[in-house]
Amino acid sequence: MSQVDVGIVMGSDSDLPVMSKAAEVLSEFGVPHEISIISAHRTPHRAAAYAEAAEDRGLKVIIAGAGGAAHLAGVIASLTTIPVIGVPIMSQLQGIDSLLSIVQMPSGVPVATVGINAAKNAGLLAVAILALSDPGLRRRLAAYRAEMAAEVERKNQALHDSKGE
Amino acid sequence: MSQVDVGIVMGSDSDLPVMSKAAEVLSEFGVPHEISIISAHRTPHRAAAYAEAAEDRGLKVIIAGAGGAAHLAGVIASLTTIPVIGVPIMSQLQGIDSLLSIVQMPSGVPVATVGINAAKNAGLLAVAILALSDPGLRRRLAAYRAEMAAEVERKNQALHDSKGE
Amino acid sequence: MSQVDVGIVMGSDSDLPVMSKAAEVLSEFGVPHEISIISAHRTPHRAAAYAEAAEDRGLKVIIAGAGGAAHLAGVIASLTTIPVIGVPIMSQLQGIDSLLSIVQMPSGVPVATVGINAAKNAGLLAVAILALSDPGLRRRLAAYRAEMAAEVERKNQALHDSKGE
Amino acid sequence: MSQVDVGIVMGSDSDLPVMSKAAEVLSEFGVPHEISIISAHRTPHRAAAYAEAAEDRGLKVIIAGAGGAAHLAGVIASLTTIPVIGVPIMSQLQGIDSLLSIVQMPSGVPVATVGINAAKNAGLLAVAILALSDPGLRRRLAAYRAEMAAEVERKNQALHDSKGE
Amino acid sequence: MSQVDVGIVMGSDSDLPVMSKAAEVLSEFGVPHEISIISAHRTPHRAAAYAEAAEDRGLKVIIAGAGGAAHLAGVIASLTTIPVIGVPIMSQLQGIDSLLSIVQMPSGVPVATVGINAAKNAGLLAVAILALSDPGLRRRLAAYRAEMAAEVERKNQALHDSKGE
Amino acid sequence: MSQVDVGIVMGSDSDLPVMSKAAEVLSEFGVPHEISIISAHRTPHRAAAYAEAAEDRGLKVIIAGAGGAAHLAGVIASLTTIPVIGVPIMSQLQGIDSLLSIVQMPSGVPVATVGINAAKNAGLLAVAILALSDPGLRRRLAAYRAEMAAEVERKNQALHDSKGE
Amino acid sequence: MSQVDVGIVMGSDSDLPVMSKAAEVLSEFGVPHEISIISAHRTPHRAAAYAEAAEDRGLKVIIAGAGGAAHLAGVIASLTTIPVIGVPIMSQLQGIDSLLSIVQMPSGVPVATVGINAAKNAGLLAVAILALSDPGLRRRLAAYRAEMAAEVERKNQALHDSKGE
Amino acid sequence: MSQVDVGIVMGSDSDLPVMSKAAEVLSEFGVPHEISIISAHRTPHRAAAYAEAAEDRGLKVIIAGAGGAAHLAGVIASLTTIPVIGVPIMSQLQGIDSLLSIVQMPSGVPVATVGINAAKNAGLLAVAILALSDPGLRRRLAAYRAEMAAEVERKNQALHDSKGE
Repeated sequence: MSQVDVGIVMGSDSDLPVMSKAAEVLSEFGVPHEISIISAHRTPHRAAAYAEAAEDRGLKVIIAGAGGAAHLAGVIASLTTIPVIGVPIMSQLQGIDSLLSIVQMPSGVPVATVGINAAKNAGLLAVAILALSDPGLRRRLAAYRAEMAAEVERKNQALHDSKGE
Repeated sequence: MSQVDVGIVMGSDSDLPVMSKAAEVLSEFGVPHEISIISAHRTPHRAAAYAEAAEDRGLKVIIAGAGGAAHLAGVIASLTTIPVIGVPIMSQLQGIDSLLSIVQMPSGVPVATVGINAAKNAGLLAVAILALSDPGLRRRLAAYRAEMAAEVERKNQALHDSKGE
Repeated sequence: MSQVDVGIVMGSDSDLPVMSKAAEVLSEFGVPHEISIISAHRTPHRAAAYAEAAEDRGLKVIIAGAGGAAHLAGVIASLTTIPVIGVPIMSQLQGIDSLLSIVQMPSGVPVATVGINAAKNAGLLAVAILALSDPGLRRRLAAYRAEMAAEVERKNQALHDSKGE
Repeated sequence: MSQVDVGIVMGSDSDLPVMSKAAEVLSEFGVPHEISIISAHRTPHRAAAYAEAAEDRGLKVIIAGAGGAAHLAGVIASLTTIPVIGVPIMSQLQGIDSLLSIVQMPSGVPVATVGINAAKNAGLLAVAILALSDPGLRRRLAAYRAEMAAEVERKNQALHDSKGE
Repeated sequence: MSQVDVGIVMGSDSDLPVMSKAAEVLSEFGVPHEISIISAHRTPHRAAAYAEAAEDRGLKVIIAGAGGAAHLAGVIASLTTIPVIGVPIMSQLQGIDSLLSIVQMPSGVPVATVGINAAKNAGLLAVAILALSDPGLRRRLAAYRAEMAAEVERKNQALHDSKGE
Repeated sequence: MSQVDVGIVMGSDSDLPVMSKAAEVLSEFGVPHEISIISAHRTPHRAAAYAEAAEDRGLKVIIAGAGGAAHLAGVIASLTTIPVIGVPIMSQLQGIDSLLSIVQMPSGVPVATVGINAAKNAGLLAVAILALSDPGLRRRLAAYRAEMAAEVERKNQALHDSKGE
Repeated sequence: MSQVDVGIVMGSDSDLPVMSKAAEVLSEFGVPHEISIISAHRTPHRAAAYAEAAEDRGLKVIIAGAGGAAHLAGVIASLTTIPVIGVPIMSQLQGIDSLLSIVQMPSGVPVATVGINAAKNAGLLAVAILALSDPGLRRRLAAYRAEMAAEVERKNQALHDSKGE
Repeated sequence: MSQVDVGIVMGSDSDLPVMSKAAEVLSEFGVPHEISIISAHRTPHRAAAYAEAAEDRGLKVIIAGAGGAAHLAGVIASLTTIPVIGVPIMSQLQGIDSLLSIVQMPSGVPVATVGINAAKNAGLLAVAILALSDPGLRRRLAAYRAEMAAEVERKNQALHDSKGE
């Protein structure tokens, strides 16, 4: 496997429809990434090994998605010093259990948490972090923002047009 | 250290006032136990080592207390097959974050969760589990229940007496 | 009826689709069990009789599932000293009412609570408790865990294969 | 003990400061009542016996207060057909656990639930029920309401006076 | 219209599928009742008139169902001294807004609240209140409870039969 | 009493410390106002009379504060067409019951809800509404905003000064 | 574009099905309005420009709908002194995140918040505000209320008719 | 002012006791930083100007803390592409409003959210991000983690010593 900058991990293959949004946005930005199914509770040794090897493998950011008592992001964050982004996956309780299990980390071991099921935003946050040392990436991020604004404008215009304004 | 049946672990020494209730009730029942500060996030290797050694060391039950994104019980449960009892410690959000982080474990790795700050009940649950193979302990547990009922009765009688009934 | 180790009870036959997962996992482990519909509120005498006879009948663990103001696990736990595992069944309010009604037991009478609808985990917790005095069961539980980890690995491999990595 | 119309029960003597408000309002209305400490979980037989004897003893309404996994009102309601009023006592989680454990009763066994810690309202609800067959009591209840309104008016007047209006 | 004992009111005709369960159970017990659509907010004068006339019309209990900022039960309770039973109707927020808007009444004006959408239990609570002065009704209520228990038993037996136990 | 533009009402004199903030800000802007204690539940006729007379008395906005099952704002809004601003007062449950009881009004009868205990903002919202037809008031509101911004700037400067920046 | 009194803005075109209810009710009352898609986060400059130009353009009220971390209403309110009405749009968490993000504004910058998805009520609130200086509009609002009450009465009558009362 | 890497901003000087923890940890790591009071709602132009100038001023990370309808982090994130870390400040509702207002950002504009009041973790997350291009900083972060683990170990040892183990 060639060099990858971002590792996307998730606790179960049922999380794939949500977490693949992170991969898509990274592909869109040309950020090399990998995606793996690793469970904090069912494959704890794999989770630990993945986290401990991350820096040496050259990973710069890890995006971890999990639901319920979502420990994956925290477990990985406890074993690496590279930034870990947590994605709370909605399964029960509207995802509030996943959110609290990820965001309320103890003092000393932060997880950068995004919104419930917000894997795309996790990818964009990873891009923003990587862009700190990659001017080209920052330019693409600024362009992405501009296109996003333009898209809102087009929808606004279409709405006005439909009303004959 | 002599043989111990129950290991009590907690994520921080600030959890000690709550978790010592578990130790007290185990002492009351004469159950050998140990108490340790082990953080899932700050000392992940210690947590893993503790869990993986538990069965060989003869531990029969582990009681784990933690607050916030409370991963300690789940992390330990993922690395041992002996029963793990989780105690949600109240720190923020009235303890609902701790509760959900402990009880909502994924399929395959249960944690026997008790109420928020309910370390005494965690100790009693450990006693009930150990009593399955210790008739003397079961008798003491039945006696404890009877005394508990009698205490309620005494308070009820005192209330009636105070009203001259 | 032959000797059974685990009694599974639920408040309503509408809980059967959830609670049968506990029976399935016990069957998978070869643990003799029974399954009954007993309502704490509609058949209170049956609930009390079941709990009070449990120890003499040789039951070692009771798994109780109920929803809403879910009193079944607590009512049974108040009348026996064998471990009671509570399964919060989701009916309204995403199951948070069931969870709190089961887990927040008063000091003195614990219920070992698992996640919302997590009957399978309740079965696995019962296995872990019984395994304390049954080395064969513990070996099967360890094997179950290993197979579970292998299954995650297979899914991870399939994901990587699908990406041509 | 002479004839009593209302039985007030609570799960713990720590509930007395709240529950005594129910007794006070009943005294104010001259409704004979009794107050007892009975725990659904610590004295389950007492709770059952109390509920089952209630109708024959002439009780017309039972007011039950409890906190946490508050099963007392439901347990009593399952064993009598006289109206049971439930008072959720605040202990943890702002009392939301107590409220849900009392109000979310299964179909067939209602509990007339009042607000968190609202023992005074429980007493007034008992008065309203008893007043259905006691015209004098209804008159006193109407007078109580009128005085309550007058008290609000007096406070309103005092507020206006303090502003020189 | 002949004499009715129980008035069922609801804020909107969209509440009818839920609230008709109260009417059904009252019919089953032979309790004369009426059902009306009255909105606390859209027809405030009708709501006030209904409440103020209730006692003189001979109503003994009012069952009020509403959702969201559910004020109907409280508004009616403020204008009559007969018991008012509140049914929180689920519309948004899983019905928690309806529940809190009904149960958290201020000191002085109680509403006897049942569970979310629990109109059937509201009907049974009305029956229990009316049965205080109607021995025949109480016998029917006891019989109803017994049949309810028998139904649970039949379902339990059917479950056991299906397993060949 | 001279002409008043804004009526401030609250359910209990215990709400005065919160609600007086609305009066203070109205005084600061020179908006004539009155303040009254009126309970939706304890003085329902007064509440109705107040609402129904409001428009004829020349009131332009009513600010209503209440806690728990906070019906006051909704009750008043149902009986007048002038804008009603609701202030959820915190009493139990952190004020979430008050908030939901006020904001979740049925279709057809809105209440302009502000934050929990945010009586000052209620006053400012009343000012903004009145300023639509009072250019002087709008100028004072703009000046108030500018001073508010300047105050933040002064605190920011003081912070920087304290750091020697 | 001719003079408009009310500006309706929303964060995304996915909010249109909800927010168009505000436009419909304004049309029904003959209030000139415009509807735009403006995102606080994706088109921040547009949001600022819209808010800052509002008063000069003659807008009297702005209705802003958004979901999740719903900042649109607050962002606009911070840049204009005309009244801003916030509509929490339900997307995740049943809309409670949207509600809290809108209603819990800091001291100094109020948003007049209506219920979750309650765009129709937002429109009616705008009408009530505009009616303060438009007697014809107030008459139409009173007539609207009367028709609303009549509609409830018709449904009530239909219900009674269907029962042969 | 010399070059700074991290800008810490907060909505009010009342947030300073919490947010200064972020500054302390950055000082401990020798990361140049600044701290400012900027309100999204009271000083919206300052907030926009700060965000838009951030990249040109050389800021690499912004840490924004706010409470209630906490829009500061989102407002800033909408106007810069450098990573923004959000700290939910507890003021009302246990801080759940602040958390949801920060974490539930719309698709396209992420905020890296940490736990309620977790400003120290925000600082550590900033360090982890900066360490991606600063090996010395990463070494200090690893050392910090090691010392943190050692501190837990010392406390664990002290606990054991106090028990004579």
